[in-house]
This record gives sequence, C-alpha cells and structure tokens, in this order.
Amino acid sequence: MLSHSQSKLIRSLRIKKHRYAEGLFVVEGSKAVLEALQSSNHSIKMVVAHSAWFGAFNEEEIPENIRFPISPADMDKISAFDTPSEVLAVVQMPERTQIPLQFEGLWLAAESIRDPGNLGTMLRIAEWFGAKGLLLSPDCADVFNPKTVQASMGSIFRLPVFHCSLTEVLSNAASDVAFVAAAMEGNASPTFNFDFNTVLLLGNEGNGLSEELLALVPKRVNIPQWGGAESLNAAIASAVLAYQYRLQHP
Amino acid sequence: MLSHSQSKLIRSLRIKKHRYAEGLFVVEGSKAVLEALQSSNHSIKMVVAHSAWFGAFNEEEIPENIRFPISPADMDKISAFDTPSEVLAVVQMPERTQIPLQFEGLWLAAESIRDPGNLGTMLRIAEWFGAKGLLLSPDCADVFNPKTVQASMGSIFRLPVFHCSLTEVLSNAASDVAFVAAAMEGNASPTFNFDFNTVLLLGNEGNGLSEELLALVPKRVNIPQWGGAESLNAAIASAVLAYQYRLQHP
Repeated sequence: MLSHSQSKLIRSLRIKKHRYAEGLFVVEGSKAVLEALQSSNHSIKMVVAHSAWFGAFNEEEIPENIRFPISPADMDKISAFDTPSEVLAVVQMPERTQIPLQFEGLWLAAESIRDPGNLGTMLRIAEWFGAKGLLLSPDCADVFNPKTVQASMGSIFRLPVFHCSLTEVLSNAASDVAFVAAAMEGNASPTFNFDFNTVLLLGNEGNGLSEELLALVPKRVNIPQWGGAESLNAAIASAVLAYQYRLQHP
Repeated sequence: MLSHSQSKLIRSLRIKKHRYAEGLFVVEGSKAVLEALQSSNHSIKMVVAHSAWFGAFNEEEIPENIRFPISPADMDKISAFDTPSEVLAVVQMPERTQIPLQFEGLWLAAESIRDPGNLGTMLRIAEWFGAKGLLLSPDCADVFNPKTVQASMGSIFRLPVFHCSLTEVLSNAASDVAFVAAAMEGNASPTFNFDFNTVLLLGNEGNGLSEELLALVPKRVNIPQWGGAESLNAAIASAVLAYQYRLQHP
C-alpha cells in the first residue's frame, strides 16, 4: 500500500524543482519500467502497479520492499498522464556531475529545445544512430520530465545525458573533436565531411542556435531543402544529420 | 460577431464525422491562417480573430464578409487547443475524389499512422524533401484533425493528401513507379537503389506495415540500427528515407 506521503511525493515529481530536490524521477508504463529495472545505472526506489502486474515477477526481479500495489483509481491520481499505465516506477537520477570534455564517436548537443516530447524523441534517435551521449543546455526541457522520459522509449536508461553549459564544454573540450553546428548557412550535408569524433549541435527550431554559441563553432552543416516546407524540427534534423554521419562512419 | 450557431459549427469541426459532413476544417494560428489565405486550392469560409488582428489586412486580403471579430474569452471556447491563438479560419476541404495512380518523383504513403501530430510532422517532412504528395490509409489519423493541421506547419495547404485504400492504389497504379516498403527485413538504405518514381510506404510504428500490404510490395528498405534503440517513429523513418532518396535523386 502506498502511504499518503508517498502518493504526494510521486505527484510532486512532475515538477522539475522537486525532482532535483529529491534526486528522483518517475517512469510510467510496463516496458519502460522493465528497462529501468534492467539498467545497472539506475536504482529503482519504488514500483507502483496494479496487483496483477506484479504476478509476473519473482522476488529476485522485483524485491518485496519496493513493491507498492495500487488500485486503478489511485493510479489515476498519481500518474502524470491522462491515460495512466498499470505501472510506474520511482527511479533515482544517475550521478552525472562530471561534464564530459573528451568525445569519441558521435555526440549530440541541443540548445534551448523546450518541447519535452521532441527532446525525448531526440534521445531515441541518438541511441538508434549509436551516439555516445547527449549534452543539453540548461534551458532545454528537463530530461527527467515525464513526457521526455516517455518519448525516449527507454533510451533515457541507456544513454548518458548531461545538462550543462554548452559554451563551457566548447571552450574546454579536448582538441581531437569537431563541433559542428546545424545551421541554415552551413555546408550541404550530402557533401559535408564529418570527423569521426563529432559533437553535432542543434538549436531551437524557432531561433536556431544562439549567436553566442555559433561564434564558437566555425563548422556548419545544413540539410538541403528540396521542397517548400519552412523548417524541419530539431529531432528530425538530428536524425537526418546523424544518418549522414553514419553514411561516412558506418 | 459570431452567431451561436457559427460557434457551435466551429466547435463541431473537432470531430471527424462533422468535418466530412460539412466539408470544412479549422486551422488555427496567424501563420497557418495566412498560408491558407494564400493557397489557391483552399477556399476560406470564415476568419475568426481578435479585432486587433484584422487591422493589418485590407478588404482585398480578407473580405469583410468573412471577418468575424471575437473576444479572447470566446476564442477560448471555440479553439481546439488549450492555449488558443488570436486567429483561426474555417476552410473548405479541397476536392480530391480522383485517387492518383500515376506517380512522378517521390510520394509517401502511410498505413495506420494513428497519432495526429506524427502525421502532421510527416506532411511537413514530405514537403521539405520535395515529395509530390501523400497517400493515407483510411485508418490513419484524419489529415484535417486540428493537431495534424497544426503539426503540418502549413504543408497541408501545399501538398496533396489522399485518404484511400493503399492496396487498391498498389493494384491499379501505372507500371512506371516503384513501391518501396519500409520494413525491418529490407535492404539497408545506404545501398538501396531508389527509382526516380517511388512511392515509399511507411507503417504504424508498433506493428509495421500489414501483411496484406507487404504481400503486394516485394521491394523493401530498412534503416540500419547503429545503436540500441528499439525503433524509430514513422515520421523520423520517413525523413531519413526521403533524405536517402534525395542523395540519389537530388
């Protein structure tokens, strides 16, 4: 049984401030909860589910002391979604205090991506194309936002993600990595030469990358426009550019 | 001023059945409304906006008889969105009774894409990569769903879209077009040979394309997975494959 204060805690984790104060976030849905349980980097504090859901798991898979059976009606109250799943888990945030300055292979970096769903999709894309991790400017949507967690389809449990100052990373990074900005005035992607060690920077779709950041990144790439649409969203652009990187570095 | 029955009509257009009974749909937001006004294929029945919004347009741009000033409070009541814009338009559906059977260049076809936002994003992608049009199976989200219209970012006014039986199109299409199914067991996209006339078929991300459809499409393409994520959503897959097409047919 979930106590009143536990219910209150879970509800409070919809808010970023509370997530970071507690060092906890919530993941909803059977598939995502199982992926969280399998992740060695993530400690699970609570699994809250309809009683029937627990039936499929033994004590070794889900220890008794983190099992919290709940009624569908009570799940409605604590879920962040309109149509709750039968299970959610409260997960400890991984410790990621050391911002990376060495980059091997492909990394993505996003500036000011405010839409949590778009950001989650970007995580999933990053993982698909074998990116090693994701850097997010502090004003991006929070990576532990329920919608981001959901849209990442489990990638959040397998890919390291850092909220950090991108200008600081740019200024202090090892010299054997190429920072490449996705920008309108860039070189056309089909003939762009990606270095093996690449951090690909993507901006907010309304404004693109900030002047401050662009001033630090001489290399620019753009996706040619073959038709009339005005823009691609940042997640789509990241997929196409990561794909182009992979055509050169399979 | 908007009459009570006009308000009621606009609200009713959130529902597919009513949209098709009336032959009308709603587009919200200043940019999208202006794109609708510029589209020669779309007849605008009403422009409903805060009075100040109309100030920027003369009688030629927006005739008096289709102008309907509205208060923000009343806009809240008729908008399909939680945070309404200052303007919406009621637009006549274009007449598209003749399902195309001849295809020049790139077309996209989607089966059972249920998420309206994803479908709108796919329209925007199709236009960016210069696709000539979009075929949608009858069980896709409706292309005139408010969320689809919004996510298409105006592409809905520039790209022909047909809800139709994909198996019928496949069975009756001209012989000089290649139908290509995006499918797990397909040939890897980087070395896939796209014909100039190509209809690219994309399935529902949970289930992929139906067996019925796949039985009619021997050509298959897939996007290699360089990392661990389980799937790409259909819109992302359409972007990457349309890009690959363009690398061969710039």
